[in-house]
Amino acid sequence: DLGVELQPMPSIRDVFRAVEAGDSDYGVVPVENSIEGGVKETLDLLQETSLRVCGEVKVRISLNLIARPGTRLEDVRIVLSHPHALAQCRSFLSRVLKNARLEGCSSTAEAVRKAVSLDDAAAIASRNAATLYGGVILASDIQDVKDDVTRFFIMGKARIGRARGCKTSIIFRLQHRPGSLYEALSIFASRKINLTRIESRPVKERPWEYLFHVDFEGDLERDERCVEALKELKEKTLFLKVLGSYGELG
Amino acid sequence: DLGVELQPMPSIRDVFRAVEAGDSDYGVVPVENSIEGGVKETLDLLQETSLRVCGEVKVRISLNLIARPGTRLEDVRIVLSHPHALAQCRSFLSRVLKNARLEGCSSTAEAVRKAVSLDDAAAIASRNAATLYGGVILASDIQDVKDDVTRFFIMGKARIGRARGCKTSIIFRLQHRPGSLYEALSIFASRKINLTRIESRPVKERPWEYLFHVDFEGDLERDERCVEALKELKEKTLFLKVLGSYGELG
Repeated sequence: DLGVELQPMPSIRDVFRAVEAGDSDYGVVPVENSIEGGVKETLDLLQETSLRVCGEVKVRISLNLIARPGTRLEDVRIVLSHPHALAQCRSFLSRVLKNARLEGCSSTAEAVRKAVSLDDAAAIASRNAATLYGGVILASDIQDVKDDVTRFFIMGKARIGRARGCKTSIIFRLQHRPGSLYEALSIFASRKINLTRIESRPVKERPWEYLFHVDFEGDLERDERCVEALKELKEKTLFLKVLGSYGELG
Repeated sequence: DLGVELQPMPSIRDVFRAVEAGDSDYGVVPVENSIEGGVKETLDLLQETSLRVCGEVKVRISLNLIARPGTRLEDVRIVLSHPHALAQCRSFLSRVLKNARLEGCSSTAEAVRKAVSLDDAAAIASRNAATLYGGVILASDIQDVKDDVTRFFIMGKARIGRARGCKTSIIFRLQHRPGSLYEALSIFASRKINLTRIESRPVKERPWEYLFHVDFEGDLERDERCVEALKELKEKTLFLKVLGSYGELG
């Protein structure tokens, strides 16, 4: 028991709103996935929010084939899941259940709820969903890519302690001219600051101009090099937002 | 009449397959949108395909409120469209049709087909869809962002002519060490080659490593600077794929 009350939200935007409004102390939002890449909705909301990044958590995705107790693999005629999860298990399905009919559901949890009410169906979902609805696992870790990890940001209003292995996240916009990104990166390279991610997002209303989301190693409260780099970067950018320095949790 | 036969395909992957198999001479795939950013499915298929980029086309998106002839704006109780299109017209809907019920459809064309069969409904779709199903336009250009442009690549096996304002697209992967992106960009900056886009995509099976999709101004068949830049880049990358030099059509 962490003494933390968890509150599911219908959308990423609602997570930001609940924390901004003070209804929650912290919000957890997906920022990138090791297969799918950046989560656009989160990246765009990071631009607007008054919240800061207080931490990051990485969670490995594992999918399982789940059915009503007593169901055997050879009984399964229908496989239910969210379309993304069905797509992530394409190779398992075509090898082991090539004659089963695939049926999309609104969520993986919904798929398990439905599957345990049938005797010829199975759902693809997490181990938690199996427990929740009293399903049993017929096959585990069936996703095509075994190392599928999602990175989450913990959003809040104040910094959480001081963690080791600290990163800082920023968003900036450059002038639209040759070499501007190169010059911005030179600020980090000349100080031997390691960038761990760079991702571009469009500037709305200005087709083919971009914002850059950058994560780098270092802590603005302890590392003078990082403070100086951002001071120099500010002079070379049209827009610079510091999302915070934070550590990895969990 | 361009003497071109158009063939709609159910997915982006199918477009690539049809051209690779020789069933079509060229394929048109969306690569980025000025609001939503890069189209992940296309970016990932560009990595794998044996096809080259033969041209680019930019198309402005315009959405309209469409109904059966005789329907007036004040009759509309239900608005049908693809959920993305409904989301793109949020401000118009809350201003002009704030009491109407919104209903998602599988496509904007399907929404028009359904709306013209009802006397209290309207659909949100393109002008073409209105014509196709005999609908009339009650309000035009109703999307929130007026300058919503999608950029398409023309994929094929051989280069199409030589266009002015030529660009080249490449994909590369760098060693995972401080300053590697900076060094790669220095190859372009030192030759005054203008990058028009840089976008990162995850390397599957290697969490938190990235491929970079880069477009730059210049033509590999006519511009010696570009040829030299790619020769130097090849030495500094783990992987380099040249998608082609091409011009803008239409």
